[in-house]
Amino acid sequence: MPEFFNVLPPDEARELLFQHLTAVLPAETIPTPQANGRVLATAVTAPHALPQFRRSTMDGYAVRAADTYGASESLPAFLQVVGEVPMGHPANVTLSVGQAAIVHTGGMIPETADAVVQIEQTQTVGGERLSVSGEESPISNHQSPQFPFEIEVLRSVAVGQNVLQVGEDVRLDAEILSSGHSLRPQDVGGLLALGITAVSVVRRPRVGILATGDEVVAPEETAAPGQIRDINSYTVAGLVTQAGGVPVLGGIIPDNFAALAAAAAHLLAETDMLVMSAGSSVSVRDMTVQVMDGLGQPGVLLHGVATRPGKPTIVGAVGGKPVLGLPGNPVSAMIQFDMFGVPAIYRLQGVHTMPRRGLVWARLGQNIASESGREDYVPARLEDSADGLMAIPVFGKSNLIYTLVNADGLIKIPLNKGGLLAGEWVEVRLF
Amino acid sequence: MPEFFNVLPPDEARELLFQHLTAVLPAETIPTPQANGRVLATAVTAPHALPQFRRSTMDGYAVRAADTYGASESLPAFLQVVGEVPMGHPANVTLSVGQAAIVHTGGMIPETADAVVQIEQTQTVGGERLSVSGEESPISNHQSPQFPFEIEVLRSVAVGQNVLQVGEDVRLDAEILSSGHSLRPQDVGGLLALGITAVSVVRRPRVGILATGDEVVAPEETAAPGQIRDINSYTVAGLVTQAGGVPVLGGIIPDNFAALAAAAAHLLAETDMLVMSAGSSVSVRDMTVQVMDGLGQPGVLLHGVATRPGKPTIVGAVGGKPVLGLPGNPVSAMIQFDMFGVPAIYRLQGVHTMPRRGLVWARLGQNIASESGREDYVPARLEDSADGLMAIPVFGKSNLIYTLVNADGLIKIPLNKGGLLAGEWVEVRLF
Repeated sequence: MPEFFNVLPPDEARELLFQHLTAVLPAETIPTPQANGRVLATAVTAPHALPQFRRSTMDGYAVRAADTYGASESLPAFLQVVGEVPMGHPANVTLSVGQAAIVHTGGMIPETADAVVQIEQTQTVGGERLSVSGEESPISNHQSPQFPFEIEVLRSVAVGQNVLQVGEDVRLDAEILSSGHSLRPQDVGGLLALGITAVSVVRRPRVGILATGDEVVAPEETAAPGQIRDINSYTVAGLVTQAGGVPVLGGIIPDNFAALAAAAAHLLAETDMLVMSAGSSVSVRDMTVQVMDGLGQPGVLLHGVATRPGKPTIVGAVGGKPVLGLPGNPVSAMIQFDMFGVPAIYRLQGVHTMPRRGLVWARLGQNIASESGREDYVPARLEDSADGLMAIPVFGKSNLIYTLVNADGLIKIPLNKGGLLAGEWVEVRLF
Repeated sequence: MPEFFNVLPPDEARELLFQHLTAVLPAETIPTPQANGRVLATAVTAPHALPQFRRSTMDGYAVRAADTYGASESLPAFLQVVGEVPMGHPANVTLSVGQAAIVHTGGMIPETADAVVQIEQTQTVGGERLSVSGEESPISNHQSPQFPFEIEVLRSVAVGQNVLQVGEDVRLDAEILSSGHSLRPQDVGGLLALGITAVSVVRRPRVGILATGDEVVAPEETAAPGQIRDINSYTVAGLVTQAGGVPVLGGIIPDNFAALAAAAAHLLAETDMLVMSAGSSVSVRDMTVQVMDGLGQPGVLLHGVATRPGKPTIVGAVGGKPVLGLPGNPVSAMIQFDMFGVPAIYRLQGVHTMPRRGLVWARLGQNIASESGREDYVPARLEDSADGLMAIPVFGKSNLIYTLVNADGLIKIPLNKGGLLAGEWVEVRLF
């Protein structure tokens, strides 16, 4: 296969990869409280309205609004308080004309009431302005006053005022969350509010990770001269977990076609995606290409992406599963996995809009050169300044992991730009 | 205790809380590959330089730079290739004047070499331009050529060119990560590259969560008229987990001073932080205040924060542990926990700079009114448009959980603003 027969811009490369993926992985049902970060396999509709009963939004008195019309400080409306709706109980009070009932914030409104007067807008008939708290208050939850008693209402209320209507939060049968939605704490809360205690979510993608290289040893080993420790397995695993996948580490494979082909076939069979972090030497890259093509159809989709760092990335797919050959250098490996592997993990879960969580804008601290026709990623530190957030490039050869350790994120230099000027606003992808 | 004796702006309220917290929780040692998201308890220094040996950044020939001076396409330098440095092995080749050795990307450089010539800048003596790959290449890793053979170098290299020097990534004894740093995948990689396979991190804060209210039932129960399901326990638990804490759910406690006081004391004793999600009625709030003061010193620090939603939040501390009384309404509870609980979780781990991950800027889709002197949070949906990212407010009463479910984040209206105008750039906190 010819070298670099197909170098694409990142967006096109990603689209090409996505065209060859299985639509979405199978679903599984899990308890809703454990579903944060998981992706809904099917849309969810409301099994009942929320709230299910009319609720007061204030501490005060449930009233018939008409009884308060025209009420003012100088001409209060007199109402007879005939009972109380205790929290957690149905409103078993019936109001006739001129009557009211004590209600608490969040409590149910009697069927015969249509509004709530805030306690601060009332006083006892003797003229005492009611406190909203303390032992002397008639609305305290813990000592019932003697009913009936009279109050003066100092301001009129409209029908529906200070009342949450049935279905005001969610209507019965409304679609509350769509399939492909990644669940957040408030979504979990919204589901539980409706009594939905289990949800169907897409299974987490399992991502097989192989490190290859005769020079690579495990992190716990002493690296002899000429050897380096495997870190790509662990940095990629960290990105997999962040994106909602499950990393499956396949270990370190020597630079040997038969060994890599066997390990790759074995790991791909038991996972949903395969990542090979190869060395950077051309012969090793050629071997990765051959192994990928030998795994199945369609195999290699493209060699190389028009980015720096990371051009010699190999993107492929086998039987609907993404297969990536990352450069051996740790910075390129992370950036390229973030560019292809992370979106693929979301895509396999049915997520079509990537989360926006990691993007900030900052002013560039110094000029950066780039080449038009290539998307560059430059590690940068973020610093607060009088001019707003500043992005200070962290320079260094692209294969030094500590350029990423010392950075807060990556400045993206778009394909069509020949560099960026100090003071420009730039997009920084937190990393 | 007087009602609302102390309503502070959020920043001052947070500072007041922080002053009463234990500096940092105790440390524990864990395997580095499992340390993503954890916070370093102590600074880490490099036990050796990285790289530990001089490495080639190219496929090509290790040379003595002086032997290539003046070389050009028309007047190449002739070098004798006397050996190869295999990947993963020490460079056991000694170069005399006019000699070179095959090296691969990432491989070790012989001690007698001081630069690398890229293979593309060479040709065999017959004039054949060398391919960088394929079976005919002399630098393929898998078949050794016959040594010695001659090459022509078509361009001179400077001393150090295409070579990573010892310590160029990290110097011996350099402080590579500071205490209080929250570990990311690249940090884990950087530690493992140095053979640091275990790290001392701050124990995850355990956060006790109590729901209170006579009207509150568990999510799996059928809510009778007047009752609602507990969701605050789960939304707060989700935020705790996101921030690196461990939620400990204490269940639902009735509106009864003795019951709440006992449950709070018990849960606080076995956790690092306590959250009580009380009802919204004033009498329940008063009870929460009394319970908090009864737990220990200093107890309640302030009632109420100058924000909407969420003003009636109670902020306290007991024996160095944060204690929060959140409003019962689910929107206020989440926003207030995000404002005080989340920063406290980071602070207990020794993190002094909150992560920037959740902030984006967008143009406001329509006017929003606010009151000066109060920080407002308005749920908003984000939409891409020709004018950039737009933030569309999601209106609705502040106690409707689905206003948050239907939003991507919260627009913050600063303390000193009397509202925002459509088209303004606004900060949206992704949520």
